[in-house]
Amino acid sequence: MKAVELTGVSRLEVCSRELAPLDEHSVLLKVEAVGVCGSDLRIYRNGDPRVSFPRIMGHEIAGTIADKGKEVRGFEIGDRVALGAHIPCGVCRYCIEGQGQHCVKGWTIGYQFDGGFAEYVVLNREMMLNGSVCELEDHTPFDEACLAEPLSCVMNGLKRLSVRPGETVVVFGVGAIGGMFISLLKKMGAGKIIAVQRSEERRKLAWKLGADICIDPAQNSVTETILEHTGGYGCDVSIVTVPSNEVQNQTLTAMRKQGRVLFFAGLPKHLTTELNTNSIVYKELSLLGVHGASRLDHQDAVKWINRKFIDMSPFITHRYSLEDTEKAFAATEQKLGLKSVVLPSRKP
Amino acid sequence: MKAVELTGVSRLEVCSRELAPLDEHSVLLKVEAVGVCGSDLRIYRNGDPRVSFPRIMGHEIAGTIADKGKEVRGFEIGDRVALGAHIPCGVCRYCIEGQGQHCVKGWTIGYQFDGGFAEYVVLNREMMLNGSVCELEDHTPFDEACLAEPLSCVMNGLKRLSVRPGETVVVFGVGAIGGMFISLLKKMGAGKIIAVQRSEERRKLAWKLGADICIDPAQNSVTETILEHTGGYGCDVSIVTVPSNEVQNQTLTAMRKQGRVLFFAGLPKHLTTELNTNSIVYKELSLLGVHGASRLDHQDAVKWINRKFIDMSPFITHRYSLEDTEKAFAATEQKLGLKSVVLPSRKP
Amino acid sequence: MKAVELTGVSRLEVCSRELAPLDEHSVLLKVEAVGVCGSDLRIYRNGDPRVSFPRIMGHEIAGTIADKGKEVRGFEIGDRVALGAHIPCGVCRYCIEGQGQHCVKGWTIGYQFDGGFAEYVVLNREMMLNGSVCELEDHTPFDEACLAEPLSCVMNGLKRLSVRPGETVVVFGVGAIGGMFISLLKKMGAGKIIAVQRSEERRKLAWKLGADICIDPAQNSVTETILEHTGGYGCDVSIVTVPSNEVQNQTLTAMRKQGRVLFFAGLPKHLTTELNTNSIVYKELSLLGVHGASRLDHQDAVKWINRKFIDMSPFITHRYSLEDTEKAFAATEQKLGLKSVVLPSRKP
Amino acid sequence: MKAVELTGVSRLEVCSRELAPLDEHSVLLKVEAVGVCGSDLRIYRNGDPRVSFPRIMGHEIAGTIADKGKEVRGFEIGDRVALGAHIPCGVCRYCIEGQGQHCVKGWTIGYQFDGGFAEYVVLNREMMLNGSVCELEDHTPFDEACLAEPLSCVMNGLKRLSVRPGETVVVFGVGAIGGMFISLLKKMGAGKIIAVQRSEERRKLAWKLGADICIDPAQNSVTETILEHTGGYGCDVSIVTVPSNEVQNQTLTAMRKQGRVLFFAGLPKHLTTELNTNSIVYKELSLLGVHGASRLDHQDAVKWINRKFIDMSPFITHRYSLEDTEKAFAATEQKLGLKSVVLPSRKP
Repeated sequence: MKAVELTGVSRLEVCSRELAPLDEHSVLLKVEAVGVCGSDLRIYRNGDPRVSFPRIMGHEIAGTIADKGKEVRGFEIGDRVALGAHIPCGVCRYCIEGQGQHCVKGWTIGYQFDGGFAEYVVLNREMMLNGSVCELEDHTPFDEACLAEPLSCVMNGLKRLSVRPGETVVVFGVGAIGGMFISLLKKMGAGKIIAVQRSEERRKLAWKLGADICIDPAQNSVTETILEHTGGYGCDVSIVTVPSNEVQNQTLTAMRKQGRVLFFAGLPKHLTTELNTNSIVYKELSLLGVHGASRLDHQDAVKWINRKFIDMSPFITHRYSLEDTEKAFAATEQKLGLKSVVLPSRKP
Repeated sequence: MKAVELTGVSRLEVCSRELAPLDEHSVLLKVEAVGVCGSDLRIYRNGDPRVSFPRIMGHEIAGTIADKGKEVRGFEIGDRVALGAHIPCGVCRYCIEGQGQHCVKGWTIGYQFDGGFAEYVVLNREMMLNGSVCELEDHTPFDEACLAEPLSCVMNGLKRLSVRPGETVVVFGVGAIGGMFISLLKKMGAGKIIAVQRSEERRKLAWKLGADICIDPAQNSVTETILEHTGGYGCDVSIVTVPSNEVQNQTLTAMRKQGRVLFFAGLPKHLTTELNTNSIVYKELSLLGVHGASRLDHQDAVKWINRKFIDMSPFITHRYSLEDTEKAFAATEQKLGLKSVVLPSRKP
Repeated sequence: MKAVELTGVSRLEVCSRELAPLDEHSVLLKVEAVGVCGSDLRIYRNGDPRVSFPRIMGHEIAGTIADKGKEVRGFEIGDRVALGAHIPCGVCRYCIEGQGQHCVKGWTIGYQFDGGFAEYVVLNREMMLNGSVCELEDHTPFDEACLAEPLSCVMNGLKRLSVRPGETVVVFGVGAIGGMFISLLKKMGAGKIIAVQRSEERRKLAWKLGADICIDPAQNSVTETILEHTGGYGCDVSIVTVPSNEVQNQTLTAMRKQGRVLFFAGLPKHLTTELNTNSIVYKELSLLGVHGASRLDHQDAVKWINRKFIDMSPFITHRYSLEDTEKAFAATEQKLGLKSVVLPSRKP
Repeated sequence: MKAVELTGVSRLEVCSRELAPLDEHSVLLKVEAVGVCGSDLRIYRNGDPRVSFPRIMGHEIAGTIADKGKEVRGFEIGDRVALGAHIPCGVCRYCIEGQGQHCVKGWTIGYQFDGGFAEYVVLNREMMLNGSVCELEDHTPFDEACLAEPLSCVMNGLKRLSVRPGETVVVFGVGAIGGMFISLLKKMGAGKIIAVQRSEERRKLAWKLGADICIDPAQNSVTETILEHTGGYGCDVSIVTVPSNEVQNQTLTAMRKQGRVLFFAGLPKHLTTELNTNSIVYKELSLLGVHGASRLDHQDAVKWINRKFIDMSPFITHRYSLEDTEKAFAATEQKLGLKSVVLPSRKP
């Protein structure tokens, strides 16, 4: 099969791979769409201790079941499915709690196992038993379905925040993730959605997706603007989707007492955050981290896409053939549009 | 009446005060017991923007109603009561939500109004309407009752954490507050209580109050010891009662994924914390602040003391006359025992 | 002043009343709009132990402050306000918990105290201190504002249910209350809203307000239709706004396992419900009651109306002068439209 | 192997069974202890649509792994384990949510599959992948371990109720289940535990396990006694472990407003409950059902027994050999002691 291997830092190579014979517990998935995630870009540029070369990356995957081992149950050849990224062991306490994204093994498609930038991907026994392999409706397009993976992480974050209708929420950063937060918050009846974003194009997108107020931090004081729009109290909820320690600290000043803050984006390894923890104490803030998504989150995300409960089409701004995967990475790096998706069946 | 005034930084003076005539909405309380809080000590040594001189400090108060204005309802002369510290305005959104500790006015007994280091304290209209003035059972001693105030802050913290029976909790610092946390956690069925404390005397106290494991951070690695006792997972809950930015950061390394951390102690103003926020993100931690207590928290605290549901006697290690208030502050500063209580009726 | 007194069962009389002098803690409110509640109708037809004759009913009130005692704080003559129905004592445990609708005194405007079917209503000391008297924006019309009271009860119900976006909710009965539930559920992102209603006119209204599926129980099996639309699982949430013991029992059969059921409507006194409690046990259902609204619920309701976050205009289908109050009651009894509102300034 | 078959209604027969060859996904468990559940007794006397004859009953099981198929992972021959009762399919929405007790298949050991009243029991593929097979510490006795199954149902109930320390809880019925509730409630810091029980012997047991007040309903009014002990408010929480529709209705009168009621025991099929649903509505009660336990509940229960966090020994009052299984059923039927456990290795 054709595949795109990461053969070293900053080295992506289109290659031909032999498909190993399928074992009786595994599934062979024909990849129909695979999204480029920010974390793929980080591995590409910096490597990652969990990734050895050569490796096929890609964990935002949708496709069709092409073959299956005889012990696989619940799936048939021809089934159209979307995948969650995590491969939970099924045995550790996090797996038993249904929080496989925190499995002690830490297996993820495209990290320790070959992923989706290829014509086919093998789903192993653990993935089939404990991962999220979730069926699509006939009408659900693959390119939207592969984004169920990042959407599930956004849904996990929203569950952590328990946003109530009518609340004021500020979203820092309007990339694909920030945009999905805005879309869902609008759907859930958030009272005021405030987007903070430097690029004008992305601020426009925020409007389109449902933001009520857009702040350009180069032009206006973020904290002052938020206080103005909240009667001086500060916002109820803050979501940080940008990897900036400055923003992580700054957002604390714009919170109302007893507000909730979500840190979605991790920071580059060498950075820490000089945090004014007294504002956490005296304002009784809740600072919440979120990472990945449970099997249930992914199933919910697919359900929402299947039902057209959320419109994913605005998030897919670039589509590429497998041969052009490197271009898809470049577009992501240059922040062109929102999301680049590779379609292996597409002609180059 | 006799009172102890703070007349300047580090200056406490016993003086004689004229009692102003009581207005019709207010109550005159004969102070029977008043605790020295760490925050009193900070005001004494550093001043506070909310405190002008001369001021009578003291917000951990129990006493007997000596006189009342004609508009006061629900209380009679002779009633024995304990007080919450906050004086909520009753009008702002936090007050309406029952979270008067976050009232936009920020009034506290002993800060903007004279407090308890005196023979009498006046409870004003707002205090009588919106503050916690909570009746004691006949058998409840005043010195224990005045500690309902700090206990209510501890109960507020425990509500934020929702500790489930069987969970492993680490408590940093075994002063009066840390000790109350340990007592309540034991009562609630925490699975393992781990106390971290340098002083041997206080580690012994932790044992007595119910800790299962005591770590001397000068002798043993805190993180390693916690990991050992939790099968390598890390603890479920961490409570920081010491004003140390080092501990605030360090505790993150000892948490299990999806664990909850409570920051109880504020830091000295000039300090911030160099926080590894990636551990918040990737472990999905919840970092929760807590400050003060709602009226309901204080009522609950008094109920628990009234019912002898918690034994407060181990926490009162020093008792002083009003004339010896400065000695009570010195004992607190030198960390003698746990809690110093001033009893105005006591002979010097 | 002009007023409408209930002078006996089924006897409403327009009369002239002397206004007593205002005490220093009270407020005189010029009534601008007052809604007819189903419970007003029940008192009118059957009496109520809490209501003695003659009594001015009416607890869904909005108006302008016409006069105030000298001890009243936080309000000025001319302020436009909406009222919550309950008059909490401020002292009992429910009041301290912010749940004044469960105050042990049980005082309600228009029950033990004269209410809103009059040119003026007196708001007493307890109402001003502990009730919800909530300011309106200049642009908020009084007739919509008086409905903040029933809306607050609906919001209380929704808080009890914690409906998550994407869930399937069935609403039994599309009167004013059922209609408000549908509107809010739509706003909050409920996945599928199923309305059950006999009258075709009201089913049409349900569509307009956002229902996805409307069932006429005279034509179709409710349970079967719900199962069909939920892949055989049953619905996540059910809300019963009709006073029918048959419906109360029937809805249990249409729930998925671990579903939540809200009983909003009380039954006529002589009725009980022959309930199949085994379906509660074996399906782990949650059966939740709701009654009235807290001060905070009412403040939230007013906030939503002020911000035009919910459109109240479809709910007001009939408007009457004070002299025509009896006609307003008749319209309510005959289920004409949704809500009849009396406007005392309106010419008869 | 020796086994006890249910060969018809009220017919238990000791027999000899051939062990079928083990398939590669299954485990052969040597049964060391198996408890008699009230539901076993019901099947024995009345049959059950899920149970065909002949069937080996028994779902409260602990034992040693005697053999395993080659595809079984995570377990070794010789492992000492306790079992959860449910066999979740792993595919339906309840299974994905970690709520396997509500799996659409509804498989349970000893119902559709042979259970524990035998020398050996086969654990099939679904059980090994999705059921709770939970390792014991060396020091944990098998007879206590087999009771992790009923204990897990009690823990599920307590999670539904979120009992807060200090709350007043009434427990109707002090059999094994009621007794476990009392033990755990004591451990969790319930403020007052009130037990309602006719038999004097069981009331004594309630005292021993931690009840603060015991009511004999033949001697005293339950509701009045509860109101007396709660300052007239009513209790916070009520738990019904007796299969009585009278008690189900009666308990509503003893609840405080916003109280929570747990229905643990199902009723005989022909019974319904004439419920005064108005008390649910007007007191805003929560009526919660509970049935079975999730995999996580069972793991928690085993953890608590492993750690000796709860003392299970008082619950095992009768021990029998396999040959005497019918005597164990008779003891359960006659309510002798609390729990009868069959130990297959015991000499008859």
